[in-house]
Amino acid sequence: MRRPILSKFSPPQLIALTFALTILLGGALLASPATHQAGHSLSPVQALFMATSALCVTGLSVVDVGSTFNLFGQLVVLALVQIGGLGIITFGTLFAFLLGRRINFSERIRLAQQVSAFEVGGVVRLIRQIFAFTLIAELIGAAVLALRFVPLEGWGRGLYFAVFHAVSAYNNAGFSLYPDGLMRFARDPLISLAISVLVILGGMGFIVQINVLSHWRNPRRDRMLVHSKIVLSVMAALLVIGTLLFMLFEWQNPRTLGPLPFGDKLLASFFQGMTPRTAGFNTVDYAAVTQPTIFITIILMFIGANPGSTGGGIKTSTFFVMMMAAISLVRGRGDLVAFGRRVARETVVRAMTVGLLSMGLVNTGVLLMLIANHDNALSFERLFFETVSAFGTVGLSMNATFSLNPSQELILLVLMYLGRIGPLTFAVAFGSSNKNEVVRYAPERDILIG
Amino acid sequence: MRRPILSKFSPPQLIALTFALTILLGGALLASPATHQAGHSLSPVQALFMATSALCVTGLSVVDVGSTFNLFGQLVVLALVQIGGLGIITFGTLFAFLLGRRINFSERIRLAQQVSAFEVGGVVRLIRQIFAFTLIAELIGAAVLALRFVPLEGWGRGLYFAVFHAVSAYNNAGFSLYPDGLMRFARDPLISLAISVLVILGGMGFIVQINVLSHWRNPRRDRMLVHSKIVLSVMAALLVIGTLLFMLFEWQNPRTLGPLPFGDKLLASFFQGMTPRTAGFNTVDYAAVTQPTIFITIILMFIGANPGSTGGGIKTSTFFVMMMAAISLVRGRGDLVAFGRRVARETVVRAMTVGLLSMGLVNTGVLLMLIANHDNALSFERLFFETVSAFGTVGLSMNATFSLNPSQELILLVLMYLGRIGPLTFAVAFGSSNKNEVVRYAPERDILIG
Ligand SMILES: [K+]
Ligand SMILES: [K+]
Repeated sequence: MRRPILSKFSPPQLIALTFALTILLGGALLASPATHQAGHSLSPVQALFMATSALCVTGLSVVDVGSTFNLFGQLVVLALVQIGGLGIITFGTLFAFLLGRRINFSERIRLAQQVSAFEVGGVVRLIRQIFAFTLIAELIGAAVLALRFVPLEGWGRGLYFAVFHAVSAYNNAGFSLYPDGLMRFARDPLISLAISVLVILGGMGFIVQINVLSHWRNPRRDRMLVHSKIVLSVMAALLVIGTLLFMLFEWQNPRTLGPLPFGDKLLASFFQGMTPRTAGFNTVDYAAVTQPTIFITIILMFIGANPGSTGGGIKTSTFFVMMMAAISLVRGRGDLVAFGRRVARETVVRAMTVGLLSMGLVNTGVLLMLIANHDNALSFERLFFETVSAFGTVGLSMNATFSLNPSQELILLVLMYLGRIGPLTFAVAFGSSNKNEVVRYAPERDILIG
Repeated sequence: MRRPILSKFSPPQLIALTFALTILLGGALLASPATHQAGHSLSPVQALFMATSALCVTGLSVVDVGSTFNLFGQLVVLALVQIGGLGIITFGTLFAFLLGRRINFSERIRLAQQVSAFEVGGVVRLIRQIFAFTLIAELIGAAVLALRFVPLEGWGRGLYFAVFHAVSAYNNAGFSLYPDGLMRFARDPLISLAISVLVILGGMGFIVQINVLSHWRNPRRDRMLVHSKIVLSVMAALLVIGTLLFMLFEWQNPRTLGPLPFGDKLLASFFQGMTPRTAGFNTVDYAAVTQPTIFITIILMFIGANPGSTGGGIKTSTFFVMMMAAISLVRGRGDLVAFGRRVARETVVRAMTVGLLSMGLVNTGVLLMLIANHDNALSFERLFFETVSAFGTVGLSMNATFSLNPSQELILLVLMYLGRIGPLTFAVAFGSSNKNEVVRYAPERDILIG
């Protein structure tokens, strides 16, 4: 009896393969002159890099999107972003919710009751729900952004810019049609805040979104999940810490916040505190920030956003469990308790493993980038920053991406892919010697990790 | 009934306090003109820095030891190194062996049988044994080093240099009486190899030393402990990897290995592969090495040497358990098995916690060093290198230590202290809310962590 070819692959293998094939297809399109503006061209590696950066919603660009690609090319980039974003949310949610591999039984039952408030019955309906949710968020975002882009760029171009940036923001892609990103909007609260809301919403993850929505509709019946409480708290804490530290380190920097008036300093700091949640947009020049800002941004980019969202990094929940476990052990407590729930030892080991694998991956990436850095063309910290940005699918850069050599482009391309698929998912997909044992842990897990 | 004041403190608290008091005493001595050569002086922070660097056997120097201190001052530095080294070995061994907090019961019984081959009956005898072992190793080392130093420096000075460098090497301190370290001996196999043997021996840890010795005397009766097998394997692997990578990245560097003949390239590479095991000696100029070498050295310095030895870092055993646990989880295996023994889940969580706390400490240190780096006087990678070197009590430097400002000296001073006492020991010493719970884990542990 022959089984269909797809059933030979496990779900993580399917994701990894689907992503790889889509990147090859997108790369072929972006290498073709049909997607280029007159007088512009890309090397095959550059085309593959841009396809990877778009599908993995990273936003790093070896060429300027606005001036290199024609409208068709830009739409290819946008389509890859949308496919990548939806794919990640859908796979992430399905894994957690339906396959039951990452969330424990009682939480799943409670969540199912909440989702049913939205009349979700099966996989197809759940996917339709995710698509609708994404589309509505992007449409509202585009409408708000159009209030600024239409007066600036005219009706046709303005609406197009509004849609492009809304999709890019909600999917945490960070691509912009302006050559200097969003720097011209550093003092514009409408653009800054609308983009921030889209990014934060997209980085929340579908399960948290739906949990928050149903809780808001009916606080008594639909309670907040432990998972939601944890990731929302960590997200809020990182946002506040990121904003305050950016303010602290850049307040008097003449090349960033220095010349801005008080209110604009706050606005720009908030934007830069939000963007390492792997949005990748910038309203200040990261090549001009101070050394402490570089380092803090690297750490925030490494941590990233919520699991099952369009954001990258090791994820807020992974970071939370790692930190809490370390504190628990130091205090001599056997069990890790968060928001009144005991966190399973398996979850702790899994979080720490995700953290370690990610550090190993980033360190390997940095080492390779330094080896490929002929004649020390780029400084240590710029390559370090760029590598973590690629791994976390953030897209921030200290203006180094245009200066990468082909070997470095290839290294970052692979890192974006691995950072997106998730070191653990990827390793489990291709390295698992005994799948049953992995699944065996399922009932104990109650926080989504990685 | 009044209890003696000392019994109010737990053993880790006692270590932390003893170290702090000795540093204050040493700092006072090194600040006094009685220890200085004519025309030289130190600020109070610099004197404290040198005392910390000596007692924590780090070897970072804000002043040149040979030309700043007179003979008395140099002997104070050497005494601090010897006290620090012996203190660390003794406390580490006592903790592991007698207090039974870090090694499991059956291993302890087996070890006790082996140690009894050396006629150790109690704490005092064990300490006497450690002291004798250290003294003999240093004396033999000094005798070998004298073969080169006496012809070079004359009898009196030559013997003194031999003793100083032997003590500095065995205790993994890395202080040298030459202003450029051991760079003049890059092509000298006698000095390079004698120093290497002393460093490796000192970085092994007393338990491993005595285990190897008794196993060598009577292989059938005294078997190798799992702990010994693990740390010796990791040590050997790091030595080989460090040497090969140094060769790879520096072979053609005109400022390091480039001009040397083939054999000397091998010798210098071996020496630099050995020294990140927190020895801190250097025969090449680390301000001249390539970017990949900087990065690899940072990673090797962070890993460090064996627990209960004079070396620093997170320790080879911690690194091993973290790596193996990550691999086990990825492969979907529930338990971590090493050399035929199951490693307890508690040991895994403890290793990962040590790794995480250390990373947190290093990251905080780097951030503070960057904040204190006024006018960007030192580059990102030089401060990063210097910070990890201080945390791991390594003592390697990209010629940055002399250029630190007082705030940075203070930050590194604290980091050397915390890196030496051990992030976990320190935190447990002062943060423990329930000591019984910590001890409760003891019987399951079988590998010394941290
Ligand atoms: K991004
Ligand atoms: K040292």
